Amino acid sequence: MQQSTLVRLKENLELRNPILVVGLPGVGLVGKLVAEHLVDELGAEKIIEVFSPHFPPQVLVNKDCTVRPVSNTIYHGKANETDVLFLVGDHQSTTSQGHYELCSIYLDIAEELKVPRIYTLGGYPTGKLTYEETVLGVANSTELIEEIKQYGIEFRESEPSGGIVGASGLLVAFSGMRGIDAACLMGMTPGYLMDPKSAQSLLKVLCKMFGIEVNTDSLKKKAEEMETILEKLKEKEEQQNLPEVKPSEEDLRYIG
Amino acid sequence: MQQSTLVRLKENLELRNPILVVGLPGVGLVGKLVAEHLVDELGAEKIIEVFSPHFPPQVLVNKDCTVRPVSNTIYHGKANETDVLFLVGDHQSTTSQGHYELCSIYLDIAEELKVPRIYTLGGYPTGKLTYEETVLGVANSTELIEEIKQYGIEFRESEPSGGIVGASGLLVAFSGMRGIDAACLMGMTPGYLMDPKSAQSLLKVLCKMFGIEVNTDSLKKKAEEMETILEKLKEKEEQQNLPEVKPSEEDLRYIG
Amino acid sequence: MQQSTLVRLKENLELRNPILVVGLPGVGLVGKLVAEHLVDELGAEKIIEVFSPHFPPQVLVNKDCTVRPVSNTIYHGKANETDVLFLVGDHQSTTSQGHYELCSIYLDIAEELKVPRIYTLGGYPTGKLTYEETVLGVANSTELIEEIKQYGIEFRESEPSGGIVGASGLLVAFSGMRGIDAACLMGMTPGYLMDPKSAQSLLKVLCKMFGIEVNTDSLKKKAEEMETILEKLKEKEEQQNLPEVKPSEEDLRYIG
Amino acid sequence: MQQSTLVRLKENLELRNPILVVGLPGVGLVGKLVAEHLVDELGAEKIIEVFSPHFPPQVLVNKDCTVRPVSNTIYHGKANETDVLFLVGDHQSTTSQGHYELCSIYLDIAEELKVPRIYTLGGYPTGKLTYEETVLGVANSTELIEEIKQYGIEFRESEPSGGIVGASGLLVAFSGMRGIDAACLMGMTPGYLMDPKSAQSLLKVLCKMFGIEVNTDSLKKKAEEMETILEKLKEKEEQQNLPEVKPSEEDLRYIG
Repeated sequence: MQQSTLVRLKENLELRNPILVVGLPGVGLVGKLVAEHLVDELGAEKIIEVFSPHFPPQVLVNKDCTVRPVSNTIYHGKANETDVLFLVGDHQSTTSQGHYELCSIYLDIAEELKVPRIYTLGGYPTGKLTYEETVLGVANSTELIEEIKQYGIEFRESEPSGGIVGASGLLVAFSGMRGIDAACLMGMTPGYLMDPKSAQSLLKVLCKMFGIEVNTDSLKKKAEEMETILEKLKEKEEQQNLPEVKPSEEDLRYIG
Repeated sequence: MQQSTLVRLKENLELRNPILVVGLPGVGLVGKLVAEHLVDELGAEKIIEVFSPHFPPQVLVNKDCTVRPVSNTIYHGKANETDVLFLVGDHQSTTSQGHYELCSIYLDIAEELKVPRIYTLGGYPTGKLTYEETVLGVANSTELIEEIKQYGIEFRESEPSGGIVGASGLLVAFSGMRGIDAACLMGMTPGYLMDPKSAQSLLKVLCKMFGIEVNTDSLKKKAEEMETILEKLKEKEEQQNLPEVKPSEEDLRYIG
Repeated sequence: MQQSTLVRLKENLELRNPILVVGLPGVGLVGKLVAEHLVDELGAEKIIEVFSPHFPPQVLVNKDCTVRPVSNTIYHGKANETDVLFLVGDHQSTTSQGHYELCSIYLDIAEELKVPRIYTLGGYPTGKLTYEETVLGVANSTELIEEIKQYGIEFRESEPSGGIVGASGLLVAFSGMRGIDAACLMGMTPGYLMDPKSAQSLLKVLCKMFGIEVNTDSLKKKAEEMETILEKLKEKEEQQNLPEVKPSEEDLRYIG
Repeated sequence: MQQSTLVRLKENLELRNPILVVGLPGVGLVGKLVAEHLVDELGAEKIIEVFSPHFPPQVLVNKDCTVRPVSNTIYHGKANETDVLFLVGDHQSTTSQGHYELCSIYLDIAEELKVPRIYTLGGYPTGKLTYEETVLGVANSTELIEEIKQYGIEFRESEPSGGIVGASGLLVAFSGMRGIDAACLMGMTPGYLMDPKSAQSLLKVLCKMFGIEVNTDSLKKKAEEMETILEKLKEKEEQQNLPEVKPSEEDLRYIG
């Protein structure tokens, strides 16, 4: 079995208690949108690339027609005085077993870089087409829950009732065994389409946590575009009493 | 490949010929209901937790909004003077190969803790909506079959004719090669829904075996609730001559 | 990853150039029927059992209510003066990769026991409901093809045109690299149902090869039973101009 | 887990900066057609065979009724003074993880044989039934893109927009980390059927690159045959306003 591969792009990093923020693709792409937005706005630098046979066997084409393998990447940036690491990527594992393997690799990195806290970002699918600004949380200790409530994160008994699938959940659950605090923060989202509006709500919470302000124009623009698509879907719903809202493939391609 | 992980919560256990009772999720959740009921009633203590990449890559949310990974757990309790270990859990392996790996791990633990006998608990799907109190058995030796017949377990030639899938079967078949006696005890159940009534029948047999009595109020209450659901299903059947009874997702979520 | 396990039931076997006959489940169960019939008729003895995580995670129930894991088994018998090994079993691998692994294990055993020749037995699906007595062959050398043509085996250019899937094919193709002669012999069969009639044709060829005669009463009886089922299917076909003949699950369960 | 196996048919090869041309099965079989055509026309010799549990567990039957396992094969030929290696084969990996493993093996071979450059060949599915002569390219460096533009290869910003799946893409993306130049050249093709016409366009580009001329009669003949099939499909389209053009299984079998 081919192993996952780490490529370290920067050695001898001087990091002081860096916070790890994880925004991998998931429901509504909420976590990915937020983390990638912060990478851009904070000018974070690529420090580690991860390639894995658990990703799809696919390469992506850059604007200049060069290609790159599907990967997950860790960036390093500064939010005020705080070192922040961002784990973002094209895909999560395509296999159950790969999820466990990759999360184990990410927690090894977190331990090595002496990360004291992890925030994983995601979307919480409501299944409704109406917008809610709520950010829902779970964490690996009640102390952490008490601490971060102040940022407007809601904690609802036993929710999400279906648990959390993928890296966002596993990283929080297993980081406790490594002595790392961790919480998963989820923007409420219809869950059918990329949701830059939910991303804005989640971003607001994160900015409050880090005590920073970032420009959100690009997210707002994306949100307006999605608004138009959502309007169309609602119109259709009224007409047809839709059993299931399925965006066209074109809508989805827009996500890329 | 990420390995399965054991976390030992108690060291230096003093166990004398402990009996292992296995109640993992399966048909009608019969085995899980019985084993978890005994864990509660006997006040059994968590001694080993098992995490595995063969479980779904999912975490579950506790009431207090902390999370825990999907796991299997071994508890230790006392039934009169007898040490009893209970193997219970959220899920069985999601892969064929994982079933073999996890069973091998459980038998390693059984050997290490000098377990002389294993009872795996399960449900036997009858496909009918009527209730039967029967508990059906198979075992890894004819001597054991003779011995446990006295507790009212039925042994029917070559049944279940389709064999037994999952941990309940594998643990019985492979324990013989380790010199461990083992039987699988199955409550008859329609098989469509969680079946606390069948669990009560199976529990009665186990209590007789261990010479104990336990309060069954909580199982009775669950049974009454399911009874109501079954009634509704039967009504529908009469109306529609149902080709296949499929409980709604809501009914199933009730199981959790 | 859990490894496949060999259990050797007889040590210090004295075998002289044993021929390996492989009859695992496949199209029409033709190969399995023939090999198991020979095991019975020649009173062959179990010498090696193979358990594998590539088999389904299932146990089968014996008449006396004891259980056994799904397995493949090697038997040793005598056909006149010739030592014959029979590889039979409940299942083939459930995974592509398992097929390669198990075949490699079987060829290791063949090398160890100094097997000079392998015959794998199978069915060749014609897709028609009419019976043909033909036995079709492929082999790993043209010399072997020339040699065994005399037994009435037909060799048709590039047939089967879709190749051969599973152990029957892999064992023949890879045995050449180990210096072992091998041929695959296939009874023509509709391919929809267990085909004891095709098995009789294939058995006839094998008996000629080994210079033996065996009682075929049990195969004939099975063939008559299947004949009745086939008649019914043909009747239906005439009535409905069937697009696809799918036996009921009950018919298939009959196969066991 | 069974490993992939290399069988080296020629030792002590004297190769000078051999170019590796990869034509494995893919969209429209364009890459496979071109590479196998060059193997034939240049009289290239088999030097390495690769067998893998990631290929289907299948053997293919030769004209003379001998069999061979599904494999990938490396051939060595000369294009003028240039050593050229051709990687061709029956199948690509059936699993995601196998794609990564096999590509890693191929790049190990490339490094060992001191390959300075790789061209992977493929088809680019247009989804339209009309023919386009364009050959589209991506590469692992902008320098290489500049260099090979002269051969009439088109490079379109961020295309293919869906990335490239399988060996053709992975080999280009990962060869950069090994210091090997690599480009993927894709013939435009409807993508539904074997496309020998697109193969001719791609072959023309390759011949220009290597400064050679080869006979293309066999490709032309295949193209004419496919033309007839395409005509029929177009006729059907006009009649029915086809939602999706699905060739019959017979058409596909023709591909073999």
